Amino acid sequence: MSDLPALSGDTAAAKRAAMTSDPSRPEARSPRGFIDRRGRDVAAERAILTAVSGVYEQWGFEPLETGAFEYADALGKFLPDADRPNEGVFALQDDDEQWMALRYDLTAPLARFAAHNWETLPKPFRRYAYGPVWRNEKPGPGRFREFWQCDADTVGSARPEADAEIIAMAVEGLEAAGLPAGSAVIKINNRKLLNGLMSAAGVDSEAQKLAVLRAVDKLDRLGPDGVRLLLGEGRKDESGDFTKGAGLNAAAAERVLAFTAAGVGGRSDTLARLADVIGGSAEGDEGLAELAAIDAALSGLGVGPDRAVFDPSVVRGLEYYTGAVFEAELLLSTLDEKGQPMRFGSIGGGGRYDDLVARFTGERTPATGFSFGVSRLASALKAAGRDLAQAVRGPVVVIAFDQARMADYFAVARELRATGIAAEVYLGSSGMKAQMKYADRRLSPAAVIVGEDELAAGTVTIKDLDLGRALSAKVTDNAEWRGQRPGQQTVPRAELTAAVRAILDAD
Amino acid sequence: MSDLPALSGDTAAAKRAAMTSDPSRPEARSPRGFIDRRGRDVAAERAILTAVSGVYEQWGFEPLETGAFEYADALGKFLPDADRPNEGVFALQDDDEQWMALRYDLTAPLARFAAHNWETLPKPFRRYAYGPVWRNEKPGPGRFREFWQCDADTVGSARPEADAEIIAMAVEGLEAAGLPAGSAVIKINNRKLLNGLMSAAGVDSEAQKLAVLRAVDKLDRLGPDGVRLLLGEGRKDESGDFTKGAGLNAAAAERVLAFTAAGVGGRSDTLARLADVIGGSAEGDEGLAELAAIDAALSGLGVGPDRAVFDPSVVRGLEYYTGAVFEAELLLSTLDEKGQPMRFGSIGGGGRYDDLVARFTGERTPATGFSFGVSRLASALKAAGRDLAQAVRGPVVVIAFDQARMADYFAVARELRATGIAAEVYLGSSGMKAQMKYADRRLSPAAVIVGEDELAAGTVTIKDLDLGRALSAKVTDNAEWRGQRPGQQTVPRAELTAAVRAILDAD
Repeated sequence: MSDLPALSGDTAAAKRAAMTSDPSRPEARSPRGFIDRRGRDVAAERAILTAVSGVYEQWGFEPLETGAFEYADALGKFLPDADRPNEGVFALQDDDEQWMALRYDLTAPLARFAAHNWETLPKPFRRYAYGPVWRNEKPGPGRFREFWQCDADTVGSARPEADAEIIAMAVEGLEAAGLPAGSAVIKINNRKLLNGLMSAAGVDSEAQKLAVLRAVDKLDRLGPDGVRLLLGEGRKDESGDFTKGAGLNAAAAERVLAFTAAGVGGRSDTLARLADVIGGSAEGDEGLAELAAIDAALSGLGVGPDRAVFDPSVVRGLEYYTGAVFEAELLLSTLDEKGQPMRFGSIGGGGRYDDLVARFTGERTPATGFSFGVSRLASALKAAGRDLAQAVRGPVVVIAFDQARMADYFAVARELRATGIAAEVYLGSSGMKAQMKYADRRLSPAAVIVGEDELAAGTVTIKDLDLGRALSAKVTDNAEWRGQRPGQQTVPRAELTAAVRAILDAD
Repeated sequence: MSDLPALSGDTAAAKRAAMTSDPSRPEARSPRGFIDRRGRDVAAERAILTAVSGVYEQWGFEPLETGAFEYADALGKFLPDADRPNEGVFALQDDDEQWMALRYDLTAPLARFAAHNWETLPKPFRRYAYGPVWRNEKPGPGRFREFWQCDADTVGSARPEADAEIIAMAVEGLEAAGLPAGSAVIKINNRKLLNGLMSAAGVDSEAQKLAVLRAVDKLDRLGPDGVRLLLGEGRKDESGDFTKGAGLNAAAAERVLAFTAAGVGGRSDTLARLADVIGGSAEGDEGLAELAAIDAALSGLGVGPDRAVFDPSVVRGLEYYTGAVFEAELLLSTLDEKGQPMRFGSIGGGGRYDDLVARFTGERTPATGFSFGVSRLASALKAAGRDLAQAVRGPVVVIAFDQARMADYFAVARELRATGIAAEVYLGSSGMKAQMKYADRRLSPAAVIVGEDELAAGTVTIKDLDLGRALSAKVTDNAEWRGQRPGQQTVPRAELTAAVRAILDAD
């Protein structure tokens, strides 16, 4: 093995290969909307999932992993667009002609699982799950066709306390993942309140109800005055385009606006204000009673209004949920790509859906849950400088000079690993300088040199690469550091691990 | 909330639903070959992946996660059956008409990733990966269409030491996952040796070479005498069927048999014996030199012949690999479903494949790796009673009597969780007896009762469910245990967590 072949991947060769576009060779690329994640990004997401799993298990939720595929009829109703059952998902026909589709969320597989195993499950059944979901949609910047979700759900409890528990647990989970306390707030609404409001405001058709919801959803953008117009006859925008309104009379429109404005102050303040607006409608009263029970349970669980509020303006997913609705909003202000402060916004949500399991069994089964996007939370934590993954650091690299001495190099790496220090022997075919560059590129804290001199003297030479990087980044005062920390030192072999450990601990 | 709705999932209702087979309702079932995994099974696989990841990172391998889909042309050559490029995988056409397929292993995505990013990667590039892979094959008992693999590969090193490192690391990973030291052995062969043997035996066509390989592969079943016939003119089996042989002369057949029998004793013994059989062929000598270097590196890494041997009878995957080939065999004897001792056999394998990246770049790029089946290793560990997952134990269940006292129950659960004890409040709508049954079914160590008496007296009552289960399983002496451990105790509220902790620690 004295004549090792030259590394085929040197830059010149790679360029040559790229330029020789041989039509018989496939292009090395990922399908659109799918990405590769490496090193630190993977570690950051795993750290989130480990932390959140720990919390969810403490709360009595068990892990569940279902397969990537479900039969399309089992997903059917829950597809993003019910009119086009195979749109939005990746579907294919099995060899028995049945259509299967990759799951597009973790709730539909849970409903299928719960329906199938209902008799043998402990009830209520609490599970959490995480993993990739797939959406066959047009990819765009930050918009992927595969992404990870992490869900927790309780199936088989109609109690509002089950909602409160999910909310309190989600707060604890997000904080365990690294969010500073108070940097996320869960906004809670209830579909029954909204139905009560519709009765109180005299809304009498689904079309009118949708128009009201659509108007409310524009509150952030248009403010109360714009929404007032949209609730009434309609609104003409700056360009002169006219949007037809929901057609409410003035009193009804004011009632809707008062409803959306009720979410200020503490949770009981909001409830009192809501009672004024929709009190009297049976369904509204039911919604208020549920929120009052959620409030009491949240207080018992130590979740104050800094972490969970009632916000009647949250209308996201109200078509899907049957009772309480939650939305987790990050209050952390981060910088966008242009360095402008940016609010991160929603990172997850959930609510009560009492109809999903019924689809299979014909029996209404109360369920409630919360879901967040793992990559989205990871991005938020990264932007806020709070991710839990260990600082990026490569392994210690043992430099390889001489084929005949490989066993010595391996023994050094092995000794370092035995004390918990990640280490490897350089296994390419380049010389000393390229090996140092390799170690630097891997962000190795140190390189270990065991040359003939060292072997003869029973020593090792250790090069402090952390120091080198710090000096070149000018993050420290050269003279001061140089005084305390040698850039390179030769120590007796017996002091190898202690010397490397000192470099690792110095930062 | 005084009139909570009855739980819809009670047994009678579920049966009714199952009997009323409404054709408009989909059946709650998984697609064939896909399974759900719960609780302990999920925990066991996660424990394996955490342990193995820790080892692989210590050796300087970074995590990589690629998407589920690859373009079919990027998988093409590596499909299980090259003649039918879309067989064996789950493929579908994207809306731009390109065929995509779910990855069927983790090597093809690595090749695509390495080819795409070669210029910017540190070289050699070391990565590990785990996740599901999908095979569109006929499912059967223990044979799924989705399963998890865990791979580690070094791309860009032609050195035999890279093979040795992968082998030593795999051994350490498997032991970290729970395999007792010495219970798995990695068998190593080299395609070049086999090519050398073919030259030495005068094999002159691909067809004859295949016939020789096929004969050698039957060694376990037919023994040397049967294989000798298959290497020569052919063999008639008990039923009288005749299998045509490879057509070697007697001396050549003996040479092949001597080759396959060389794998006894230490690694250097095997090398010496192999040199006798195939010495002189240039390619055989090259293979011998590589194995000698692997032997030296393994010794430097402390991996003796109890953990890694040379075994020339390993012919699995020799068509695919270009140099060294590894197979990890479990020596653990476990019991099969009928209680018969059973050898677990292969749980993983790998080898050197220098052509995969070249498919994209046109440049030969040396690579070597090892892969194991996560569920398969989990099954082996479970069968051997060695899995790392924590003992199955549910959360402590706080019994719920009175809607007005829910906040008190939540406060108890919260206090337990704050000291690291998993706990939940019962959130169904059943009475005391059903709640106890629920707690028992969840394998809760204890149930906590906070009734009116306890609230008035400032106490809690704790029921020891671990004890109840131990007594009913008769694993202990009733009188003795009863003396030491009360089945139920009422303690001051301030002693809640200490009393529950005592139950948890008693087992």
